[in-house]
Amino acid sequence: MKKEVINEEKVKIIPLGGLEQIGMNITVFEYGDSIIVVDCGLSFPDDEMLGIDLVIPDITYLRENADKVKGFVITHGHEDHIGALPYVLKEINAPLYGTKLTLGIIENKLKEHGIEKLVKKKIVKHGQTISLGDFKVEFIKFNHSIADAAGLAIFSPAGIIVHTGDFKIDYTPVFGDPTDLTRLGELGKKGVLALMSDSTNVMRPGFTNSERTVGKTIDHVFSEHANSRIIIATFASNVDRVQQIINSAQKYGRKVIIEGRSMVNVINTAIELEYLHVAENTIIDIEEMKNYTDSQLVLITTGSQGESMAALSRMAASLHKKVTIKPGDTIIFSSSPIPGNEKAVSKVMNELSMLGANIVFQDTHVSGHACQEELKLIYSLVKPKYAIPVHGEFRHRTANADLAMAMGIEKENIFVISSGDVLQIGEKEAYVEEEKVPAGGILVDGLGVGDVGNIVLRDRQNLAENGIIIIVMTFEKYSNQLLSGPDIVSRGFVYVREAEDLLEESRKIVTDAVLDCIDKNITDWGKIKMIVKESLSDYLWKTIKRHPMILPIIMEVE
Amino acid sequence: MKKEVINEEKVKIIPLGGLEQIGMNITVFEYGDSIIVVDCGLSFPDDEMLGIDLVIPDITYLRENADKVKGFVITHGHEDHIGALPYVLKEINAPLYGTKLTLGIIENKLKEHGIEKLVKKKIVKHGQTISLGDFKVEFIKFNHSIADAAGLAIFSPAGIIVHTGDFKIDYTPVFGDPTDLTRLGELGKKGVLALMSDSTNVMRPGFTNSERTVGKTIDHVFSEHANSRIIIATFASNVDRVQQIINSAQKYGRKVIIEGRSMVNVINTAIELEYLHVAENTIIDIEEMKNYTDSQLVLITTGSQGESMAALSRMAASLHKKVTIKPGDTIIFSSSPIPGNEKAVSKVMNELSMLGANIVFQDTHVSGHACQEELKLIYSLVKPKYAIPVHGEFRHRTANADLAMAMGIEKENIFVISSGDVLQIGEKEAYVEEEKVPAGGILVDGLGVGDVGNIVLRDRQNLAENGIIIIVMTFEKYSNQLLSGPDIVSRGFVYVREAEDLLEESRKIVTDAVLDCIDKNITDWGKIKMIVKESLSDYLWKTIKRHPMILPIIMEVE
Repeated sequence: MKKEVINEEKVKIIPLGGLEQIGMNITVFEYGDSIIVVDCGLSFPDDEMLGIDLVIPDITYLRENADKVKGFVITHGHEDHIGALPYVLKEINAPLYGTKLTLGIIENKLKEHGIEKLVKKKIVKHGQTISLGDFKVEFIKFNHSIADAAGLAIFSPAGIIVHTGDFKIDYTPVFGDPTDLTRLGELGKKGVLALMSDSTNVMRPGFTNSERTVGKTIDHVFSEHANSRIIIATFASNVDRVQQIINSAQKYGRKVIIEGRSMVNVINTAIELEYLHVAENTIIDIEEMKNYTDSQLVLITTGSQGESMAALSRMAASLHKKVTIKPGDTIIFSSSPIPGNEKAVSKVMNELSMLGANIVFQDTHVSGHACQEELKLIYSLVKPKYAIPVHGEFRHRTANADLAMAMGIEKENIFVISSGDVLQIGEKEAYVEEEKVPAGGILVDGLGVGDVGNIVLRDRQNLAENGIIIIVMTFEKYSNQLLSGPDIVSRGFVYVREAEDLLEESRKIVTDAVLDCIDKNITDWGKIKMIVKESLSDYLWKTIKRHPMILPIIMEVE
Repeated sequence: MKKEVINEEKVKIIPLGGLEQIGMNITVFEYGDSIIVVDCGLSFPDDEMLGIDLVIPDITYLRENADKVKGFVITHGHEDHIGALPYVLKEINAPLYGTKLTLGIIENKLKEHGIEKLVKKKIVKHGQTISLGDFKVEFIKFNHSIADAAGLAIFSPAGIIVHTGDFKIDYTPVFGDPTDLTRLGELGKKGVLALMSDSTNVMRPGFTNSERTVGKTIDHVFSEHANSRIIIATFASNVDRVQQIINSAQKYGRKVIIEGRSMVNVINTAIELEYLHVAENTIIDIEEMKNYTDSQLVLITTGSQGESMAALSRMAASLHKKVTIKPGDTIIFSSSPIPGNEKAVSKVMNELSMLGANIVFQDTHVSGHACQEELKLIYSLVKPKYAIPVHGEFRHRTANADLAMAMGIEKENIFVISSGDVLQIGEKEAYVEEEKVPAGGILVDGLGVGDVGNIVLRDRQNLAENGIIIIVMTFEKYSNQLLSGPDIVSRGFVYVREAEDLLEESRKIVTDAVLDCIDKNITDWGKIKMIVKESLSDYLWKTIKRHPMILPIIMEVE
C-alpha cells in the first residue's frame, strides 16, 4: 500500500545568483521554517562595469527570512562559491558547513575582513550527514580543480535533491578518492527527486582528462628543460596541480619558490591541513634564489590569467622586484584563459617571449568540469525525476537540459530557471512561482557596497569614451549679471595643446550662448545650462563627431 | 665566372606597422629613389584605448619621402590591410595596385570618404608583373578567407623578396585557383633573397582545412533543419563562404536575405565583379520576408563577432526592426571569435538561446591562415636565404622563426623585427640599422586623427574607473576673499542620493581646507587647488578606498 501514497510535500529552490552570470553561485533551499543556503560566491565585473571590483548577490530574500536560515553549506573553496561570504555573513550570521580545506580557505578570507571570530564553522567529512532544521545534508565526494570538493544530497520532506557542485570525474585523482559513484547509485536506487548538475562543459563531448595527465606533461617539461630555470603559472587554488609540480621539482632536484600573495596563502593552508605534502627544505624563500643555479629552481606563481597585478604579469613587464626574466627561462602556463582573459594572457606571453623566455602551454592543463559522458554517467546513476541544470551560461544550461532529455527525463520535468525564480518542487508536481524574489548583482567598488548603480556606470561609460567638458561661470545673484567666465576645462577629451583652435571656438560658442540668454532675459539657470550645453554639443558633433559629457556649472555671488 | 660575383646591392624593408599589434599592416620597400608600400591597414583599439574608433599607422617616414613613393601594392581586401588607405591617401596620393575584388572593396571605402575620384587605381591579375621605379612586382595567386588574395614577388636590384600576404593553401578553393605553388617553386629555383610569411597559425600543427569543408557542414545543417528559418552570421568579406551558403539555399529552395550594411556592400561588389554567382530571384529584399515561410528563408548577416551594433546582435537583443528571433530559428555562427571577442559572442549566443533559437557553431568555420605544414611547404618551395616572419604577435613570429630554422635557414639570417626597424638586406649581408623610423599607432576618435594621446587616454581610464569630483569656488581678485563655494559636483563617482553623508562630509573637508588657506594667507591659486585636492583625496581613500579624479576650479571676480 505504502508505495502508492504520493508524497505531497514540496520544497522551494531559489537561486539568488549564478544563473544569469558566471560565478556568484548561491542557492536557497526552503521548507517550512528552515532555510539552508548552498554556496555564497562572488562574480567578477563585466567589461561594462567600469571601476567595479567585484559583484555580490542581492540577499534581500535572506534578510527578510533571516530567522529561518540554519546555515551555509559550501561545496568547495573557489571564489565563485565562497567569495561573497565576508559580505553576506555580516548580515546573516549563520554557521558554515564545509570540508576541511574549504573551511580553511574561507578562514583566510574571513581573517582579511576581520570577522573570523564572529562566524561558527563546522568541518564535515565526505560521507557525513548534518542536520539543519527540516533538512539533512550529506556531503558526497566529488572531484574538481580544487581539492576537497563536495557534492550534496539534500534530504528534505519532499524528497532527495542531489547537487553536484562544480565537478568532474577523476578515476585517478592526485589526492584523495575519486567521485563517489557508488553512493550516487545508492541514492538513485532509493529515489532522487531532483538533480542539479554542473553545465560548464556540457558542450564538450567525451570525458575530461585526469589531473594526473598534467603531472606527466609537467614532468616531461622538467626533463626536457633540465638546464633552464622553470617558472610555472597556475591557479592558486589548484592544490593538486601544485602537488604535482612539487613532485617533479623533488624528482629533478629543484628548490621551489612560491610567488604571489594568493598562491602563498593557499599553499600554506594546504600544507598546514595536510592536503599538500612537501619534503623539508624543498620550498625556499625568494631571497634565497641567488644561492641556486637556474637548473636548481622552479617558481610557482600566480598570473596565469594575465591579471595585470599578478606576479607573472609583473615579471613579464619587467616590474617584478625579485625576478628578472632572462633568455632561456622556461615558462609554463598551466591553465587555460578564462573567457574574456585571452588578450591579457597573449600580452603576457608576448612580453615574456620578447625577454627571450620559452613558453610552454600545450597539454599543461585540464578542466575541472565534467564533459558530456561524465554528465550522462551522473544522470544514469542518480536517475532523478527532475533535472535542474546549474553552473553555466543560459546556452550551457539549455544544452544540459537537452542532455537530460536524451537521458530519458521528461521535458516538463526539466527546469532551466533564472536567478530569483522560486521553484516549488515535489513528487506530485513542480512549478516556478509567478512572483520572483529580488536577485541580481550588488556592485562593490573599494569599500562601497551597492553605492554604484546604473546611473553612475552610465556616466563612467560616457566619461571613458568621450571625456568631460566643464563650463563654469559666475553670476551675480538677483541682477543676472555675468561676473566671470564662462571658462572651459576639459579632461579626457582632446590633447589640449593640439586642439587650441577647437577649444577657443568652443569657448566662443559657449560665451555667445550665455550672452544671448542674458539678452533675452532668461534668468532660469537650469535653462541657461541647457542652452549652453546644447549649443556646445551641437558644435562638437558637427566638427569632430564626438559627444563628450558637458557639465555647465553656475556659481552665484551676492 | 658570373656565378661567383656576389650581388652587393641592398634593399631596405621598413615595416611601419603590423608587428607590434594585430592589424595595421604596412611595409615600405625602398631602393634608391623608389619606394613601394605593401598594404595599408588599420587596427582596432585595445581595451585600454577608451573611446578610440580605430588606429592607423604613423606615416611620418612616407611623408618625408613622399616624392619617392611609386605606389601602394595591396595583397587583399581585409581592413587590416586596406583600412588606413582613406587616411593615408589624403597625404600620399600614389596609385593603388591590386586584384579586381580587392580594388572593388577599396573603391567602396574611398567613396565613403569622398575621395574615390582623387585616387588612381590599377587592376593587376595573378601572374602579372608591374613596374614601380626600380622595383618590379609580380602578383602570385594565394588563398585566404577573402577571394582574390595575392602574394607578391618583389624583384629588386638586391634580389627577389617573396611576401605571402595573409594566406592558406586550399587545393579545392570555392572560387578560382589554388595557391600557385609551381610559381613559388620556380622563384625558389631562380633564387629568392627573402621570404616574408604569415605567422598567424604557426602554433597549429597540420594543415588548415579547405573552405569547401565548411560548405559541406552548412549543407548538412540545411538538410537537418528543413523546417526552420536559418540565419547565418559570418564575416562580410568572406565571399566564398557566402557563395556556399547561397549554393545551399538554392539547393534547398530557400530565398536569401542579406542583412547588415557591410554584408550588403561586399556582396553587391562581389556580384558586380562576378566573384559571386547567384541565380536570379534568389536574393530578396528583407521587406519580402513576410511572403515566405520559415523553411523558404535564409538570412545572411553580420555580427558573428558579437559586435554590439551589428545586425545579429540587434536581433539577439530584440532591437532589430525587421527580424524577430523566435523559437525554432536555427542560427549558424560561421566564424570563430577573434581573440578579445569571446565574451561578446557568448553574450549574443545566450540571448539568442533565451529567445528559443538553436545555435550551431561546430565545424562551421575554417581559418584563413596557414598552419605549420603549409608554412613548411612554402619554405621548401621558395628556399629563401633570409626569413622575415610577419603577420602575428611576437610569440607567433618567434615560432615562425623556429620553424624557419627547422627548415634549414641559418639563425643569423632570420629577422624577427619590430615596426619602425630599417632592415637592410642583400645577398652579401643583412642587418637592422641602429636608428629606427617613427612607427606606431595614430588614434582616430570620431573625425579627430591623432588628437587623443596618452594623457587623454590616462584621464579617460581614471574617469572610467573612478569618476570625477569637481570643486568650484569664486574668489575676489586681489582681495583673496571667497565669494562663493566651494561647491562640489560629481559624475560617475557615487549614486548621489545614497551617499549624501559622504558628499556632505567632503564639502566640509574642502571648505575647511580653503578657509585654512585663507587664514594662512595663501594666495597662490595653484597651491590652494593642490591643498584642496589632497585633503579630499586623502579623505576619500581613507573612507571608501577610491581615487576619483578631483578637479578644483577657481573663478575670479573683480
